[in-house]
Amino acid sequence: MKNISNTPCPIARSLNCVGDTWSLLILRDALAGLTRFDQFRKSLGIAPTMLTRRLATLTEEGLLEKHLYSERPPREEYVLTIAGQDFLPILVMIGAWGRKYRSMGGVTQLIDDESGQEIKPIVVDAVTGATIGTRAMHLVIPERPTTSSTSQINNQ
Amino acid sequence: MKNISNTPCPIARSLNCVGDTWSLLILRDALAGLTRFDQFRKSLGIAPTMLTRRLATLTEEGLLEKHLYSERPPREEYVLTIAGQDFLPILVMIGAWGRKYRSMGGVTQLIDDESGQEIKPIVVDAVTGATIGTRAMHLVIPERPTTSSTSQINNQ
Repeated sequence: MKNISNTPCPIARSLNCVGDTWSLLILRDALAGLTRFDQFRKSLGIAPTMLTRRLATLTEEGLLEKHLYSERPPREEYVLTIAGQDFLPILVMIGAWGRKYRSMGGVTQLIDDESGQEIKPIVVDAVTGATIGTRAMHLVIPERPTTSSTSQINNQ
Repeated sequence: MKNISNTPCPIARSLNCVGDTWSLLILRDALAGLTRFDQFRKSLGIAPTMLTRRLATLTEEGLLEKHLYSERPPREEYVLTIAGQDFLPILVMIGAWGRKYRSMGGVTQLIDDESGQEIKPIVVDAVTGATIGTRAMHLVIPERPTTSSTSQINNQ
């Protein structure tokens, strides 16, 4: 693998932190309120060694923080940082894809407390208000004398 | 691992199709217009056997479709299905996270062709218009006589 931490692609850089199923499911569970090793282990059915490694990586990457919740015996829990909390929209969109294409037998629904209605998450550009995928866009590589369009994005 | 294809969680189901870095980077490249084996291999610096396996899985899962682009010699290319194209918003949000938290040294910017401005992608609920993470929400498990709130989502 190329050293993706040096790539100018922010997608590759993100995936370098959390680019596997377990890490993303740990973040999902943390967003649902889980904090303790045993809670994650039971929820995920993951081998303890695997869980230990993923929690260590997520902590090193600044997505989780270890807090002491018991002095005697000393026990730590894992709490989401702001960067970890900012995975919520990503996971919500991953869930929306699964709800659309992998719903056989029934999947969980995400309900807005206030409206009582099912949430229909979409990605929009906060600048123009346009839904992502409905307008042409291109990538610009940074740190060049002239910005150059390197890649058209095809979603039409 | 629990059999996540039977879980009611749509996030786990999605990740069951594309839950690794390579698969997501292949989708990224396909959305940027790449279609051929050698194009993916060069872009990703991935071992051919790994790439073959990932392309086969993405095809089986219905995210890519094989098309013949040369009869003699027979050559196939990989084209995104609608389900594959629907990964665009997810990848755009993963990119936004990387741009926010892993931008050291410069990362690519996503520009709206029409406005010429950098896109600021956010996830909103199309029903209420609220940005995801700004209002309380809960999950409901399907196929129960009474819907029950199983999990509060913490992002405040």
